[in-house]
Amino acid sequence: MKEVIGGVCAPKGFRAGGIWCGIRKNKTKSDLAMIVSDTMCTAAGVYTKNKVKGAPIVVTKNHLADGHAQAVICNSGNANTCAPNGLEIAEETCALTAKALGLLPTDIIVASTGVIGKEMEIGPFATGIPQLADVLTYEGSQAAAHAIMTTDTKLKEVAVEFTVGGKTCHMGAIAKGSGMIHPNMATMLCFITTDAAISAPMLQKALSDDVPDSFNQVSVDRDTSTNDTVTIMANGMAGNDEITGEGEDYKAFTEALAFVTRKLSFCIAADGEGASRTIVCQVNGAPTKETARLVSRSVISSNLFKAAVFGKDANWGRILCAIGYTDAEFDIEPIDVTLSSKAGSLLVCEKAAHHEFSEEKALEILSEDVVTVEVEMHQGSGSATAWGCDLTYDYVKINGDYRT
Amino acid sequence: MKEVIGGVCAPKGFRAGGIWCGIRKNKTKSDLAMIVSDTMCTAAGVYTKNKVKGAPIVVTKNHLADGHAQAVICNSGNANTCAPNGLEIAEETCALTAKALGLLPTDIIVASTGVIGKEMEIGPFATGIPQLADVLTYEGSQAAAHAIMTTDTKLKEVAVEFTVGGKTCHMGAIAKGSGMIHPNMATMLCFITTDAAISAPMLQKALSDDVPDSFNQVSVDRDTSTNDTVTIMANGMAGNDEITGEGEDYKAFTEALAFVTRKLSFCIAADGEGASRTIVCQVNGAPTKETARLVSRSVISSNLFKAAVFGKDANWGRILCAIGYTDAEFDIEPIDVTLSSKAGSLLVCEKAAHHEFSEEKALEILSEDVVTVEVEMHQGSGSATAWGCDLTYDYVKINGDYRT
Repeated sequence: MKEVIGGVCAPKGFRAGGIWCGIRKNKTKSDLAMIVSDTMCTAAGVYTKNKVKGAPIVVTKNHLADGHAQAVICNSGNANTCAPNGLEIAEETCALTAKALGLLPTDIIVASTGVIGKEMEIGPFATGIPQLADVLTYEGSQAAAHAIMTTDTKLKEVAVEFTVGGKTCHMGAIAKGSGMIHPNMATMLCFITTDAAISAPMLQKALSDDVPDSFNQVSVDRDTSTNDTVTIMANGMAGNDEITGEGEDYKAFTEALAFVTRKLSFCIAADGEGASRTIVCQVNGAPTKETARLVSRSVISSNLFKAAVFGKDANWGRILCAIGYTDAEFDIEPIDVTLSSKAGSLLVCEKAAHHEFSEEKALEILSEDVVTVEVEMHQGSGSATAWGCDLTYDYVKINGDYRT
Repeated sequence: MKEVIGGVCAPKGFRAGGIWCGIRKNKTKSDLAMIVSDTMCTAAGVYTKNKVKGAPIVVTKNHLADGHAQAVICNSGNANTCAPNGLEIAEETCALTAKALGLLPTDIIVASTGVIGKEMEIGPFATGIPQLADVLTYEGSQAAAHAIMTTDTKLKEVAVEFTVGGKTCHMGAIAKGSGMIHPNMATMLCFITTDAAISAPMLQKALSDDVPDSFNQVSVDRDTSTNDTVTIMANGMAGNDEITGEGEDYKAFTEALAFVTRKLSFCIAADGEGASRTIVCQVNGAPTKETARLVSRSVISSNLFKAAVFGKDANWGRILCAIGYTDAEFDIEPIDVTLSSKAGSLLVCEKAAHHEFSEEKALEILSEDVVTVEVEMHQGSGSATAWGCDLTYDYVKINGDYRT
C-alpha cells in the first residue's frame, strides 16, 4: 500500500468539483461540492448519534438503505438542521442532482454543514447544481474538498493505492471538520471513494468496524455534531473479484481504509478550531480495547490539559487526572505517562506518581507541532489512539463570534 | 429561613482562621485554613469519584468513618496528590492539628488543593498549625475562606438561620473552586458547619442526597478534580432535639442545606476560571429527574455554547445540539428553549426548531452577568438546575500558564 495524490478522484471513474452557488453570502468561498462515479457503486454510511440530526442524514440513510449510490452532493454554509423545511430541501437537492446527472434521486448521498437552525432556500441549489454538474473533472477532488470546508483552515484529502487479488485498487477521501468535533462521529463530514469491488454488506461492515478506532477517537471540543456523516462508495472499476466475505482481500481493503481514516482523523484534530498543536494519545496495556479508547479520549478531551499544551506546560497531573475520571474499570496505580515528540521522549509519571524530569527538555518536546502522550497501563493488551488539539485563545474567538 | 452573615462561624461554637505558612512561595496569599468546633460534632463527607485521589481524601474518609469530627485543616498551593509521601504528610498534618487543639488526630478533617504531583513538605505545617490555632476567632470565616482559594477570584461563603423544633439553628459554609470543576463533585472543597443537632447517619444522608442536585450540577471545564471534598460538621449547640429520622425537623435541615449548597454552586460557577458571565440551565418537563440533571449539565458543559455566551451570540442551535448528545432516553421533537436574564425573556427554539426572535433583544439578554437557559421538554415532570460559565480567553490564559 502506498499513498498517492488525487483524493476522491484517485480511484478510477470518479469525478468531482466544487463551486460557489450562493448559500454563503460571501463569494470568496465555494459552498457546493459534488462527487460522481461513472458507474453504480455499492455504498455504506455511518452517522452522528446526536438526537438532533440534520435533515440530510435522514434522507441519506434512506437512500443508502439498499446499499447503493452513485453521487454525493454537499453544501457548506448551512447545516439544514432544525430548519422547518429541512427534509423537503434535502429531498429536492437530491432530485436536482439526479436530474443534472441522469441518475435516480435515491442514488444520491446528500449532506450539509454550517450553521444550525437557519432556514435553507432551494434557489442556490436550483441554479448551482446544473452548473456544478457541468464542471466536474477527474481531477476535481481539491475543488470538492474546498467547497465543504467551514471553519477548516486546511483542505483535507488523502488517497492510497493497494492491491486486492492481484489488481491495483485505489481509495480516496475528502473530509471537513474543525469545531463541534467529538465522538460519536467526530468527523462532521467525510466522503470516501474506491474503485475496489466489494459487496454492500462487507462495505458497511468495514466502515462500521473502522470508525470506532478512527473518527470516533477524535475530539476537538467534546461537542458531538448534529450532521456528522461518513460515506463510502465502491464502484468496482479496479476489476478485482468482488469482496464478499472476510479473508486476504477484505484484509487488504480494511487496511487501506484504516490508513485513509486515521490520516484524516489526524488532519481533523490538527486543524481543530484555533489549534496551535496536535495532541496524540496512545494508550497501551489497557485491560480492554474499549478502556484504551476511553482513556485516550479522556486525555485528549481535557480542557485543562489542552490549555496546558497550549502553554507548553508539562502538567502531567492533569493527564493523570483525566485518566482517573475516565468512566471505566482499571487500576490507576501502575500507570506510566511519557511525553514525546520529534524533539525526544520523557517519562514524566511513573506508577501514577511524579517522575523527576528536565523541565527544559519538556519544554523542547512540547514546543513541537505534534505532541504524543504515551500512557502505559501495565494491565493487559488493549491499545488505542486518540487525536486532539490544544485549547487556545483562537478557539474562543472563533466560537464566540461564529454566527455574527 | 433567612440568609445571615458569618460563614462557617455563623453557627454557635465554631472558630476559624487562615494564615500564610509557606506552602505557597508568595506571602501575599494565605495558604492554611482551620475550622474548629468547641464541642464534638457529628460529621459527614462526600468525595471525588476520580480514581486518582488526593492523599487527604483517604485520610479524611478514614477519620469520618465513625461519623464524628471536631476540626478541619486545609491548605492551598499543593494538592498533595500523586506525591510520594502524600499519606504520611496528610496523617502528620492531622497529628499536628490535633496536638495544637488538644484533640484526637482521628477527629480531624484534612484537605488540600493546588498543584498535583508536587512533593509536600511538613515544615510549613509544623510551624503554621500552632500559629494558626492561636489566632482562631468566632469571626474568622472569611480568613479561612481566603486561605483555601487557589485561582478563585472571589471569596465564597454563605450562612443561613433556620428553625428546628422551635430552636433557632444556623448553618454556614465556605467553598473554593474555579478550575478543574466538573461533576462528580464539582466543588473541589466545601466545608459546612451547623449548630443543629443531627445524628451522623442522618447527616450523611442529607449530604449525600443533596450533592447530586447541587455541587454535582456545576461544571466549569468538565475536568473532575482529584481532591473534591464536601464535609459537614454539626455540633448540636443550637439545642434542638437531635434529628434522628425523617420528618419536619429533617425537612427544615435539608432545606437549609439545599440553600447553602445551591448558593455556593452558583458562586463556584460564577467564579469559573476566566468566566465573564454565569450560565444557569433550568430543565423542566423531563421524563425523569436524572434526565433533567444530565440535559442541564450537557448544556452548561458545551464548549461551543460557552464560547457563544462569551460572544453574546444567541446560538440556540448549540444548545439544542448539546441537549441532543446527552446520553439519556428522551424525545427531542417537543423541546422548547427560552433564554432569559434580568433584561427579559425570549423563546428562541420551539419544538426543536427555530423560533423567530429579535436579535437585538437577545443581545440585551445575553449582555447580563447571569444568563438562564430554560429547557422545557414537555414529556414528564423531572426538573433540575445546572450551573456553569462562559468560555473565555482568560480561561485559556489561566490554564495555559498555571504551573510556571
